[in-house]
Amino acid sequence: MHIFDIAIIGAGPVGLFSVFQAGMNELDTCLIDSLGTVGGQCSALYAEKAIYDIPGFCQISAQGLIDNLKEQVAPFPYKTYFNNTCLHLKCKDGIWHLQSKDNVILAKTVVIAAGAGTFEVRKPPVLGLKEFEDKTVFYHVTKKEKFKDRIVTIVGGGDSALDWAVLLADGIAKKVNLVHRRDIFRAMQKTVSAMQKLRKHGKINLVTPYQLLGVKGNNGYLTHIDIKNMNGEILTIQSDFLLPFFGMTMHMGPITNWGLKIVKKHINVNPSSMETHLKGIYAVGDICYYPGKLKFISTGFAEAVRAIHSAYDFIYPDRIRHFEHSTTKGIPSNE
Amino acid sequence: MHIFDIAIIGAGPVGLFSVFQAGMNELDTCLIDSLGTVGGQCSALYAEKAIYDIPGFCQISAQGLIDNLKEQVAPFPYKTYFNNTCLHLKCKDGIWHLQSKDNVILAKTVVIAAGAGTFEVRKPPVLGLKEFEDKTVFYHVTKKEKFKDRIVTIVGGGDSALDWAVLLADGIAKKVNLVHRRDIFRAMQKTVSAMQKLRKHGKINLVTPYQLLGVKGNNGYLTHIDIKNMNGEILTIQSDFLLPFFGMTMHMGPITNWGLKIVKKHINVNPSSMETHLKGIYAVGDICYYPGKLKFISTGFAEAVRAIHSAYDFIYPDRIRHFEHSTTKGIPSNE
Repeated sequence: MHIFDIAIIGAGPVGLFSVFQAGMNELDTCLIDSLGTVGGQCSALYAEKAIYDIPGFCQISAQGLIDNLKEQVAPFPYKTYFNNTCLHLKCKDGIWHLQSKDNVILAKTVVIAAGAGTFEVRKPPVLGLKEFEDKTVFYHVTKKEKFKDRIVTIVGGGDSALDWAVLLADGIAKKVNLVHRRDIFRAMQKTVSAMQKLRKHGKINLVTPYQLLGVKGNNGYLTHIDIKNMNGEILTIQSDFLLPFFGMTMHMGPITNWGLKIVKKHINVNPSSMETHLKGIYAVGDICYYPGKLKFISTGFAEAVRAIHSAYDFIYPDRIRHFEHSTTKGIPSNE
Repeated sequence: MHIFDIAIIGAGPVGLFSVFQAGMNELDTCLIDSLGTVGGQCSALYAEKAIYDIPGFCQISAQGLIDNLKEQVAPFPYKTYFNNTCLHLKCKDGIWHLQSKDNVILAKTVVIAAGAGTFEVRKPPVLGLKEFEDKTVFYHVTKKEKFKDRIVTIVGGGDSALDWAVLLADGIAKKVNLVHRRDIFRAMQKTVSAMQKLRKHGKINLVTPYQLLGVKGNNGYLTHIDIKNMNGEILTIQSDFLLPFFGMTMHMGPITNWGLKIVKKHINVNPSSMETHLKGIYAVGDICYYPGKLKFISTGFAEAVRAIHSAYDFIYPDRIRHFEHSTTKGIPSNE
């Protein structure tokens, strides 16, 4: 069976940059993700949101960053295992075995870049919702154009609810209903103000304090939504789409049982190597913890660089790593 | 006198990203550099070279990265002190005083992002060279178009000499003479091969083993170069430009005397805060050292994030920093 130099778990931005660094160091690499494609949270949760703090980009959408990183790793050979959740990690004869439902991946080292682990959407406790999911009920937005000139009901009072209410009400949706069980919001003041302004202009229909009661429609196509207030009064409002933004629950998932040192739902690493307390297993990005850790993407990128260099030194303890800047070294397609 | 929250020393990529982070945290910031403009080594030494390992950029020129970072800091107010070499650092009543030849800058915290410190070009020991400098003799290349259809003599055998010989010989210069005192080169094999190929096609005139002896010309305009071999034989070759690439000497400069803990010409920091052993003084990027430190720009960016957050907590010990991603927070011009 093939033994990789490095198996990278998690195809978010930090996992992708780990693949790039492994490529620059000519390591035999595979990339594993439980989802069906690269991107992690960036693609799945906030694809169209603008990120402002990636060095060198005044502004880049989360999906734009992922697309760029995909292009950046393209010159390097690496094998991908998508829709592949690693269940068990075991060491046999110095080789790490990553066992999934369908296969076993062997590698000399493992870089865990699993972000918040497996993340799950908190769904409203409403019967019959499943029939509408991914057709007219969405828990996150990937393409906002879908809502062009339609009636959209957003339920929730946090940043996601407010951000999308403002974004969709401003020139995209025909009408936005914003339903929240309280009169106050847990969102940035600036967004709340923007929402109130759009409400004044009749672009947002704010309905509080109401809770989601039920959905009506046919074959996955929504027509109406029932909401209820504290007095038990029920309102039925017309709606083409429903976006319940009730937040996420994050699970570390099977990683918890791999024998790693877990501190407050994060994997403890030595920041000078990014190594966990298992030899040859590294953790980077949002899933790792060390004193002073900050959960920024730019921080994760630097951790990826550190982890790959540590892994290289672990795999080739006798090689002297010739330090080369990329300006001198170039990339494969460049030769 | 005005007291800044943060004085950032060094306007290279890491210093610039420190300004951005300080801006995101609404700190009152100044940026100091001994050169007359932003960019540090990126602009002064390898402006047109392609960098391949900045996350999210398949390829970006060093100057391109600096230009992007300049744009990224533009929404934030910060004061600049260029052509300003900080000579002394002293603490009075809890405020840091940065003394230069002409002024004193006061700040609650200081982030040293001084790269390799002050860097100096190693010049060939040839009389009369000064008259030609910056007219027809250059120690680094900023605009390669200057050499279009001209005869260029490059002296040296390292990466810079070979890289520029290949780059200028391939469709820019009319002719490139490459002079080196040995027959072998201390450069990437790939570049040496490219040079040999261009030589075969008559685009590079390789002259070894020869050393630079003298320069001839008028009013700063070069006409000929004298070179000498081991037997004392002298060759005079026609040349419009001379590029001696003898490497650089780096000095930490006055920083050495600021009472910081210096380890092998680097400032020792605590990696969990980027703080030096002086309270409120941080060091980031190539100038800092901690176990596991790697000298990559991406690593420096993450160190900048860490240092600014540490400085914020130091300036406002009682404030609870509300962690916000830039996707939620936005930037000033965005409001």
